[in-house]
Amino acid sequence: MTNDTPNASASNAMWGGRFAAGPDAIMEAINASIDFDKRMAAQDIRGSRAHAAMLAAQGIITDSDAEAIREGLLTVLSEIEGGNFPFSKALEDIHMNVEARLKDLIGEPAGRLHTGRSRNDQVATDFKLWVRDQMDAAIEGIEALIRALLAQAEAGADWVMPGFTHLQTAQPVTWGHHMMAYVEMFGRDMSRFRDARARMNESPLGAAALAGTSFPIDRHMTAEALGFDRPAANSLDAVADRDFALEFLSCATICAMHLSRFAEELVIWSSAQFRFVVLSDRFSTGSSIMPQKKNPDAAELIRAKIGRIMGAMVGLFTVMKGLPLTYSKDMQEDKEQVFDAADSLMLSLAAMTGMVSDMTANRPALEAAAASGFSTATDLADWLVRELNMPFRDAHHVTGTLVAMAEKKGCDLPDLSLEEMQSVHAAINASVFDVLGVHNSVASRQSYGGTAPDQVRLQIGRWKELLG
Amino acid sequence: MTNDTPNASASNAMWGGRFAAGPDAIMEAINASIDFDKRMAAQDIRGSRAHAAMLAAQGIITDSDAEAIREGLLTVLSEIEGGNFPFSKALEDIHMNVEARLKDLIGEPAGRLHTGRSRNDQVATDFKLWVRDQMDAAIEGIEALIRALLAQAEAGADWVMPGFTHLQTAQPVTWGHHMMAYVEMFGRDMSRFRDARARMNESPLGAAALAGTSFPIDRHMTAEALGFDRPAANSLDAVADRDFALEFLSCATICAMHLSRFAEELVIWSSAQFRFVVLSDRFSTGSSIMPQKKNPDAAELIRAKIGRIMGAMVGLFTVMKGLPLTYSKDMQEDKEQVFDAADSLMLSLAAMTGMVSDMTANRPALEAAAASGFSTATDLADWLVRELNMPFRDAHHVTGTLVAMAEKKGCDLPDLSLEEMQSVHAAINASVFDVLGVHNSVASRQSYGGTAPDQVRLQIGRWKELLG
Amino acid sequence: MTNDTPNASASNAMWGGRFAAGPDAIMEAINASIDFDKRMAAQDIRGSRAHAAMLAAQGIITDSDAEAIREGLLTVLSEIEGGNFPFSKALEDIHMNVEARLKDLIGEPAGRLHTGRSRNDQVATDFKLWVRDQMDAAIEGIEALIRALLAQAEAGADWVMPGFTHLQTAQPVTWGHHMMAYVEMFGRDMSRFRDARARMNESPLGAAALAGTSFPIDRHMTAEALGFDRPAANSLDAVADRDFALEFLSCATICAMHLSRFAEELVIWSSAQFRFVVLSDRFSTGSSIMPQKKNPDAAELIRAKIGRIMGAMVGLFTVMKGLPLTYSKDMQEDKEQVFDAADSLMLSLAAMTGMVSDMTANRPALEAAAASGFSTATDLADWLVRELNMPFRDAHHVTGTLVAMAEKKGCDLPDLSLEEMQSVHAAINASVFDVLGVHNSVASRQSYGGTAPDQVRLQIGRWKELLG
Amino acid sequence: MTNDTPNASASNAMWGGRFAAGPDAIMEAINASIDFDKRMAAQDIRGSRAHAAMLAAQGIITDSDAEAIREGLLTVLSEIEGGNFPFSKALEDIHMNVEARLKDLIGEPAGRLHTGRSRNDQVATDFKLWVRDQMDAAIEGIEALIRALLAQAEAGADWVMPGFTHLQTAQPVTWGHHMMAYVEMFGRDMSRFRDARARMNESPLGAAALAGTSFPIDRHMTAEALGFDRPAANSLDAVADRDFALEFLSCATICAMHLSRFAEELVIWSSAQFRFVVLSDRFSTGSSIMPQKKNPDAAELIRAKIGRIMGAMVGLFTVMKGLPLTYSKDMQEDKEQVFDAADSLMLSLAAMTGMVSDMTANRPALEAAAASGFSTATDLADWLVRELNMPFRDAHHVTGTLVAMAEKKGCDLPDLSLEEMQSVHAAINASVFDVLGVHNSVASRQSYGGTAPDQVRLQIGRWKELLG
Repeated sequence: MTNDTPNASASNAMWGGRFAAGPDAIMEAINASIDFDKRMAAQDIRGSRAHAAMLAAQGIITDSDAEAIREGLLTVLSEIEGGNFPFSKALEDIHMNVEARLKDLIGEPAGRLHTGRSRNDQVATDFKLWVRDQMDAAIEGIEALIRALLAQAEAGADWVMPGFTHLQTAQPVTWGHHMMAYVEMFGRDMSRFRDARARMNESPLGAAALAGTSFPIDRHMTAEALGFDRPAANSLDAVADRDFALEFLSCATICAMHLSRFAEELVIWSSAQFRFVVLSDRFSTGSSIMPQKKNPDAAELIRAKIGRIMGAMVGLFTVMKGLPLTYSKDMQEDKEQVFDAADSLMLSLAAMTGMVSDMTANRPALEAAAASGFSTATDLADWLVRELNMPFRDAHHVTGTLVAMAEKKGCDLPDLSLEEMQSVHAAINASVFDVLGVHNSVASRQSYGGTAPDQVRLQIGRWKELLG
Repeated sequence: MTNDTPNASASNAMWGGRFAAGPDAIMEAINASIDFDKRMAAQDIRGSRAHAAMLAAQGIITDSDAEAIREGLLTVLSEIEGGNFPFSKALEDIHMNVEARLKDLIGEPAGRLHTGRSRNDQVATDFKLWVRDQMDAAIEGIEALIRALLAQAEAGADWVMPGFTHLQTAQPVTWGHHMMAYVEMFGRDMSRFRDARARMNESPLGAAALAGTSFPIDRHMTAEALGFDRPAANSLDAVADRDFALEFLSCATICAMHLSRFAEELVIWSSAQFRFVVLSDRFSTGSSIMPQKKNPDAAELIRAKIGRIMGAMVGLFTVMKGLPLTYSKDMQEDKEQVFDAADSLMLSLAAMTGMVSDMTANRPALEAAAASGFSTATDLADWLVRELNMPFRDAHHVTGTLVAMAEKKGCDLPDLSLEEMQSVHAAINASVFDVLGVHNSVASRQSYGGTAPDQVRLQIGRWKELLG
Repeated sequence: MTNDTPNASASNAMWGGRFAAGPDAIMEAINASIDFDKRMAAQDIRGSRAHAAMLAAQGIITDSDAEAIREGLLTVLSEIEGGNFPFSKALEDIHMNVEARLKDLIGEPAGRLHTGRSRNDQVATDFKLWVRDQMDAAIEGIEALIRALLAQAEAGADWVMPGFTHLQTAQPVTWGHHMMAYVEMFGRDMSRFRDARARMNESPLGAAALAGTSFPIDRHMTAEALGFDRPAANSLDAVADRDFALEFLSCATICAMHLSRFAEELVIWSSAQFRFVVLSDRFSTGSSIMPQKKNPDAAELIRAKIGRIMGAMVGLFTVMKGLPLTYSKDMQEDKEQVFDAADSLMLSLAAMTGMVSDMTANRPALEAAAASGFSTATDLADWLVRELNMPFRDAHHVTGTLVAMAEKKGCDLPDLSLEEMQSVHAAINASVFDVLGVHNSVASRQSYGGTAPDQVRLQIGRWKELLG
Repeated sequence: MTNDTPNASASNAMWGGRFAAGPDAIMEAINASIDFDKRMAAQDIRGSRAHAAMLAAQGIITDSDAEAIREGLLTVLSEIEGGNFPFSKALEDIHMNVEARLKDLIGEPAGRLHTGRSRNDQVATDFKLWVRDQMDAAIEGIEALIRALLAQAEAGADWVMPGFTHLQTAQPVTWGHHMMAYVEMFGRDMSRFRDARARMNESPLGAAALAGTSFPIDRHMTAEALGFDRPAANSLDAVADRDFALEFLSCATICAMHLSRFAEELVIWSSAQFRFVVLSDRFSTGSSIMPQKKNPDAAELIRAKIGRIMGAMVGLFTVMKGLPLTYSKDMQEDKEQVFDAADSLMLSLAAMTGMVSDMTANRPALEAAAASGFSTATDLADWLVRELNMPFRDAHHVTGTLVAMAEKKGCDLPDLSLEEMQSVHAAINASVFDVLGVHNSVASRQSYGGTAPDQVRLQIGRWKELLG
C-alpha cells in the first residue's frame, strides 16, 4: 500500500512557506497589527477629528489646517466604509494607514495633527471608544433577550413545570417563573455592563507618550467631544492600563455563563426523553430520514461560547500580569481577544433571543413531568405543620406513609381519598386537597419572589416598567 | 547501589491509605464540606437569628420559641468562636453542625427554625453574607494601600525618575506621578468592589428550596435585618446563581493584576542593576555572607498571587458552565475557590501596603537614570515646533543632529552651548534651555493629568479629599 | 427593625484581626510554607538520606556522620508519621523543620548534611518525588476505573442503548461499546501520565543553589538511589523549571475532562425522564418523603472537579509566565496548586470507580429508547444502497417514505410488512428485516471498532490482556 | 461644544447591521464554519482520496468511480491552492464545499464517496491530520531554536555572567550554561510533542456517524494510507473526543511558558540599566531622536503569546467540559482555538530563533555584573569547609568577616591580601585564591550539569549528537 501523496511534506512546506522569507518576514508577521486593528478605523478618525478641533480652538494649529484635517479624515472614513481603502501591511497599523492617506489627501497640514498627542494615547483612546461601543451593544442585546423572555413568561405565567435540583424533580414551578429567573440573571448582566461603562468613560487623549505634554491642550474639550465624562487624571495610567478591557471580558464571561446554563437546559429539554420544548427549524437542524430528530445546533453553539470568551479573558489577564509601566508591546495582544469575545457575545445574545422568541413549550409534557415523583409531598408536609401544628419530624413521617400508600396504589397524592388519609392521621381534613396537585402547589407559593402565578406576574410587571 | 527504602511503596500506600475504607469513605471524603464551610459559621448563625425573629413577628412560631432559638444560637456562636465546638464530619456541613448543637441545647423548638426555609436558600444567604464581608474587607484594604501610595507621592511629587515604555527610558516623570498612576488603578478597583457589593446585596432568604413557600413569611424583614437592600425577586434565581461570587473573583483578579505590575516593578527596581528602591528588611530576606543581596520575597509572592486568584475564578466559571437550574451539587465547589482567593487578595493588599509604607526611593539613582539616554530629546523637538513653528519633520531632524553632537562630545543636551545649537539651526535662542534637563522637562508637562509636580499635587489633593 | 447585631463589624474585625500584629505578622503569613509543604516530609527525608549516603561514599563526610544523619532522619520521619512532630511556623518550611529537629537529635553532624547541596535543589527534588508519586497514584487510580468499566462492558456487551449526537438519538449502540469508549479515553490518560513520568524522572539533586558545586559529589548515585533515571543535565534548569508540575496538571485536567463527560451522562441518565441507570445509595442521596428522588451527588461533584483542577493549572502557568531564571520566590506557589489538584483527581477517580462498580443499567429503558425515533432508518438506507445498489439520494427518498408510512401507522420500521415496503419500492425483499430492529442494527456494525457485540468483545479482550 | 458626529450611533448601527437580516442571518453567522475550516482543505481531500481508494479495493465502489473521485479531488485541491475556488457560506463548511465542487466536476460518482463514512468521522480525521502537521511543525521549529541556542552556547561556553535568584546576583555562571538551560527546557518541549503525536496517531476514519458501518470497509488500509499507526479502536470515542487537540494546546502552552521566560530576560537584559545584550535592529524598533533607545518589540510580543495560547487551551477545555457522548455541535469550537494557538506558537518560535541568532552578548557588562556583590562569597565558604574541614557555621562567620573587610576597603574578595585573610583565620593559605574571582568560581563547579565550561561543553556535545 502506498502512502497517499498530496501534502506528504505538508509540515515542511508550511513551516518553510511561512517564514521562508527570513527574519524580516517573521518580524512583519509578528509585529503588524493592521489585519485586526483596522476594525478601529471609525474610532481612530473620530478621535483625530476631535483632537484637531481642539488644537484649533486652543490656537495651536490654524483653523484652516484643522478644517483640512477634519474634512480629509471624513474622506478617509468614507473610503474605508466604502471598502476601497488600500490597507498596507508595511504601514503596520490602522493609525499609520490613516495618517499616510491623510497626508496624500491634504499634504503638509496632516503632519500637524500629531501635535500634543502620541501613538500611545491615540491607541488607548481608539480602543476605549471601541470597547465602549461594545458595552452599549451588549446592553442593547441583553435588553432584547430580556424582552423575549418576558414574552414567554407572560404567556406561561401559570403553566406548570418541574422545578429541578440535581436534575431531579423537586417541586412544581411555573414556566413564567423559570423564564423570570433568567430575566433576573440577565438583568444583573446588563447592570454590570452599565457600571463598567461608567467607570471606563474617561478620556486618555492628551496623555501623550506617557507624561502629558507642554502644548496648551484642552483635554476636557476633547473628552466632551468624544462623549467621555472627563479626562483621565494620570497620564501614565491612561496609556498603561487595560483594566477596562478586562472588565468588559469579565462581564461578558459572566453573561456567557448565564447563556450556557439556559442553552444546556434547551438541549436537555429538546431530547426525546424530555420533550419540554420544541425549537424552531431556524435554530436547529433535522435529519432527512429521521423525522423526530431535531438537533439544537444554536443552543449547543451558545453553550460553547463561554469557552472562547473566558479564554479571551484568561489570555488578556496573562498578558497584563507583571507588566511594568507604562506601554509595552505585549499590550498589542489586547485587541484580538476583545474583538473575538465581543463578536461571540453579540452573536450568542442574538441567537438566544431568536431561539427564545421562536420556541414552543410543550405544556402537557411539562405538566405531566411536574406531577410525577410525588412532587407535592413537601406541600403536604408543610400543610401538616402549618394547619395541624405538627412538628416537622412527625409531618415528614406522616407524609412518607401517605406517599408509600399512593405508590403502592399506583396513584398520585391527590388521588388518595380523605378516608385513606385519615387512616394515617385522623386530624387531616378536606382542606388538604387545596395544596395537593401541582396547580394548587404553585398557587400556594405566595412568598415574595415565589412561583405563584400572581407573584410571577408582579415581577413581569416590574420588569416591563423598568425597561419602558 | 540499593534503592533508598522509606516510602518505596509510597504511592500504593497513599492510594490504598486514602480510600482503603471503601466506597463509604470515598463518598464522605468527596461529599462533606464541614472542613471548609465552617468559616461561614458566624454568617449562618446571623441568618438563622434573623429568620427566627421574623417567624415570631409573623406569628409562625411563638415568641418564646424564637427567643430560645436566638439565645441558643448565640451560645453556639460563642462555642465556635471560643474554639471548643466539636465539629462532626458525619454531620457533613456547617448548617447541620449548628442545627444539631442547637437541638442539644434547646431541644424541640430547634426543629421550628427550619419553617419556611430550606438548605438551599440558607446556603445562598450565608455565602452571600460571607462574600459581602470580603468585599468590605477588600475596599478597606485597598483604601489603606492608596493612603500609603499617597504618602509616597506627596513626599516625592517632584523627584525625577525615568518614565519607561518597553522598559526603555522614554521621558522623565516624577516619583509622585508614578505612585499616583497606581492610585488611579486601585481607585478603580475599589469602585469595582463597591458596584459589585451594591448589585449582590439582595437577600435569598425565604426562597426556600427553590419555589418560595406557603408560610406567610416576611422576606423584607429578614432582608433588612441582615443588611440587604431588598429580597431577591425570583426564588429560582436566588438559589441557583453564583454570579456574585464570580464578580467578586473578577474584581479580585483585576486588582491582583494591578498588584502584580507594581510587584514586578519593585523586583526590577531592587536589582543591583537598577537600585531605584530599597525595600525594608521586614519584607525581604538577605544573605548572611552577601551583604548587598536582598531578596524581594514579599514582592515576588504578591506578583505570583494573581495566579491562584485567577485560577479560582477560572475554576468557578468552569463549575458553573452549563449547569441547569436550580441547585446542583457541583455548586458546593464555590466556597473553597472564593475563600482561597479572598485570603490571597487580603494578604497581598496588606503586604503591598506594608512594603510601600516602608520602602525608600533612591533619589540619586532615579534622577541619574532619568537623565540618561537623551531623555529630553522630545522636549527639544516640541520646543522647536512650538516656539519656532517648525514642522515636525524638520524639528526631528534638527533634534537628531543635536543629539548626535552631544553624543559625540560625551555630554547631555543641556550641556551644549547656545552657539553649538545655533550652528545647527540659527533661530534657536536661550529659552530652549528652559525645557532641557529633566527638571525643566517634567515641569513643562502641565496638561491635565501630566507629570508636572503641580499637576501631581493637584491629584494628590483630590484623592485626599475623596478619602476624607 | 434593628440590625441583627452579631458580626455587625465582621469585616473590620476580620481585617484587623488578620493583620493587627503589623508588618511582621503579614510577612510571616505570606511567606511561611510549612502549613502546606509538610506534606513533602517523607520525600524530603528520603532525599536527604540518599544525599548523606552519597557524601559518605565520596569521602566528603565520614561514614559515622552519614550513619547518624540517616538514622536521625528515620527518627524524624517516624515522629512526623506518628503525628507528634512539633511543626514550627517560625522555621518557615518543612526543610528547616526537619533540619532543626535533626540537629536536636544528633547534634553537630546534622550541619554536614547540607554539604554540596542547597535549598533550591532540595526543594526541586522533594517536589519532583512528590509529583512522581502522584503520577503513579493517578496511573493506579485510572487502571482501577478501567477495570470497573471493563466489568460493565463485559456484562452488557450486547445490551442495546441509543447512540446520541446532540443528545438526540442517532443510531443504536451497545452498552458495552459505550463503556469501552471511556476505556479508550482513560487509557490515553494513563499513557499520558506514563510519558510525563518518564520525562520528568531526572534528579535535580546536586544542582546546588544554581551553578552546581565544587564538592566532588556523585549525582548519578543519588539519582539512582531515589529512583531517577539520571541526573538533570543543567543545574540552572534543574532549580528553575516547573514544567513537570505543569505537565502533571495538564494530564490531570484532560483526565478530569473525561470524567466530567461521563459524570454529566450519569446525571442525565439518572433523571426521571431518562432512567437509563440506577446509582447506588452509597453515591447518591435521597429524600425522606419523595421516594423516587435520588440525587446523583457524587456524579455532580466529579463533574465539577475539572474546575479546580484546571484552575490550578491556569494558576501555576500564570505564576511561571515571564519569570527570569533561576529560582524566584513566586515559585513557592507551585505546591498548593498541585496538592489540591492531585487530591481532587484521586478522589474523583475513586468515586467514579465506585459509582461505575455499583451502578445498574436499566436495560428495558435503554432498549426502548434505542428503538424510538426510527433509529434504524440509516440501516434501511444503507441496505438499499448496499443490496439494491441504489444511489444514496434515492435510498434516502425511499427510506423517508417508509418512515412516514410507519409514523402514520403508529408503528416502527420493522413492524411494516414486506408488502407495505414493496409498495414503496418493488425490489425490497425479506432480507431487509435483517437490518431493521435495534439488535440487527448493532450486529451489522462489524467494521473494526464498531458497535457489533463481537467487535466490542474483541476490544474487551484486548484491554484485559493489556492490563494483565 | 458639539458632540463629534461620525459614528455617534455606532452601536445601534453595528447591532442592527450585524443582524438586521433576522434569524436566518444570525443562524448562518453562528453556524457556518467555512471561514475557518477551509484551512483543512488539503487534509480533507487527502482523507477522501484514501477513502475512495479503499472503497474500490474492497469492491464497494468500482475502480473507475474511485479513479474519477481521486482525480476530481486533485482538481479541487489545485483550485483551492491556486486561490480560485469559490467558497460558499451557504454550503457551511469545507466538507460540503469540496463535495459540491466534486459533484460539479465528475457528476454522479461523487455521491458514492460518502459510502461507509459520515461527516463525524470525516471531521475528526481532517482535524487530526491538521493537528498532526502542527505537531511536526512545532518539533521542527523547536529544533531550529535549539540549534540557535547551541550556537550561542558554544561561542560563550566560558563567558562569565551573573546567575540570578530573585533577580539578585547569586553566583557567577557562564553564558553557555544559561543558554543550555533553555536547550534542556525546549528539549523537553520537543519530547512532549513527540509523545503527543504518537498517542494521537490513530485513524478515526470508518467510525462513521458513531457506531461503525455495515459496509465491508478496511480501516487498516485507510489508516496506513494516511500515515496513522492504526485505526482507532472504538467508534464512539473516535468521533467524540478531542483530547489530542487539548494535548497539543497543553504542550504549546508549556513551550510558550518557556518562551515567555526567555523573552522576559531579553527585555530586562536590553534595558539601559542591564545592557547585557544587544538585539538586532530586525527584531527591535528604535527612536529617530533617541539613539540609545531600542525597543525589544519581538521579545515583548513573544512574552505575551502565552496569553492567547493558554486562553485557547482554557477555551477548549471549557467547551469540552461535561459534554455527553458523542458529537455535539459545541465541538465546532475546537478548530479556531487550535488554529490560532498553532499560528502563535510557530510565529513565536521563529521570532525567538531569529532573535537568538542575531543577538550579541555584552561580555564586559556581563562579567562586571557577575563580579559585583561579592558573588564568590559562597565559593570562599565552600573552600573553608572543604579545605580546612571547617563546620558550615564557622565558615559562614569567617566569610562574613572577610566580605565586611573587603566592603570597608571598597574592593572585592580576590583583592584582599593573604595576610588580611589570615588575620581573620590563620589557616587560610594561598590556594584560596584559586576559588575567588568569577572565572575560578565557575571553573570549580565541576559537578555533573554544573556551570564549569568543561561541563557546559560536554552538554553541548551531547545535544549536537542528539540532533545529528
